[in-house]
Amino acid sequence: MVVIGNEILSGKVADTNSPFLATELRKLGVALRRVETIPDELDDIGRTVRRFHERFDHVFTSGGVGPTHDDVTIEGIALGMGRKVIRHPELEAGLRAFVQGELNAAHLKMAEVPEGAELLPDESLRFPTIRVENIYILPGIPEILRRKFAAMRSLFASAPYHLRVIYTSYSESMIADSLNQTVSEFPDLLLGSYPKMGDPEYMVKLTMESKDDGYVQRAFDRLLFLLPAGSVVRTE
Amino acid sequence: MVVIGNEILSGKVADTNSPFLATELRKLGVALRRVETIPDELDDIGRTVRRFHERFDHVFTSGGVGPTHDDVTIEGIALGMGRKVIRHPELEAGLRAFVQGELNAAHLKMAEVPEGAELLPDESLRFPTIRVENIYILPGIPEILRRKFAAMRSLFASAPYHLRVIYTSYSESMIADSLNQTVSEFPDLLLGSYPKMGDPEYMVKLTMESKDDGYVQRAFDRLLFLLPAGSVVRTE
Repeated sequence: MVVIGNEILSGKVADTNSPFLATELRKLGVALRRVETIPDELDDIGRTVRRFHERFDHVFTSGGVGPTHDDVTIEGIALGMGRKVIRHPELEAGLRAFVQGELNAAHLKMAEVPEGAELLPDESLRFPTIRVENIYILPGIPEILRRKFAAMRSLFASAPYHLRVIYTSYSESMIADSLNQTVSEFPDLLLGSYPKMGDPEYMVKLTMESKDDGYVQRAFDRLLFLLPAGSVVRTE
Repeated sequence: MVVIGNEILSGKVADTNSPFLATELRKLGVALRRVETIPDELDDIGRTVRRFHERFDHVFTSGGVGPTHDDVTIEGIALGMGRKVIRHPELEAGLRAFVQGELNAAHLKMAEVPEGAELLPDESLRFPTIRVENIYILPGIPEILRRKFAAMRSLFASAPYHLRVIYTSYSESMIADSLNQTVSEFPDLLLGSYPKMGDPEYMVKLTMESKDDGYVQRAFDRLLFLLPAGSVVRTE
């Protein structure tokens, strides 16, 4: 995911779009591999999106798609993908139907796409999502981003992750050996260790994940056996 | 800033460290230029931090500095900077004073730093912040990251940004011409335009910033003049 927006980097707005997408993609069984938050600058958008396009299966951008001077995401992606910016007839027709009176330059900017872009239509939305190859161009406004993602989430469904959780009352230093042993026996396990400060119930939350349900269950059983006696508060 | 952590990318934990640092740096007059959120993977950490080291004045990392198998930030930074990982005598001595009984391998991992690293001491903290050239290595736990940043914030103080804000009841399409005109007359102005959905008071928040107080005030006055009559709700 590429988050485009000076307002995020300058601390004016907290980015809620990347946490939303992280959670939604995980539910779909999709691993989010990287989030880069970058300024509203043409070259940076172009270079960053190009790199993501080459490296990942799917790329999502958020932000920079409005009608004002600082909305340069479409132009940036076109630059990065070596395409011209064109006015899309279908978007223009949609704007003409929606806007009362004459379309001004700002309205018409909203009809611009990188050449060859596809529109992903959705009946619940006034405005389709623009896709360029594997790049999905989403808006920065959280309410609209969420509606757009909801409309296309079936495109990304994959095998789900299976999760088991162990809460321990011991510090990470006291359980590190058990974790290392488990990871060495289950090299494909996604094992996370997350200390929590000031929680009366537990000190460390251990998450174990795999797309193979049996594998994560065997690893879970093994780690429960390896952890020091009395260290486990509860499991999920 | 480089945020290191599978827990963020998998949606288990929302990253509060980068919004915190964005806000704090802005208050200090420092422009945060980029945030990359990456997995707990050695090569990726090394490559990303190296790129940031070369490109930016200061680099902050968060996460991956505990004693467990998934804490590979120190090793990753050492790799990226072409240095060995060594055990720092001062950190080891601190751990020996703090930990009751024998230090195990997990404890000793907490004393590891990239060779040549400096320690930034602070009396309010048990553990100093590790710096490697322009890279400040911060923990993922928000409470500790905040304390560590508070202890070193004076290192980054710069000239402050001056901010003026205009709230309009008109949509971005209706005010885009005024914004474009203002930006063309004040090319160094940082002018942001942020539409808000469902707010009864206003449709768009316009932020105007510069390190030159007089410049931002002249741009503010000019934009107020250019905006359509009746479009301004209030200013700050």
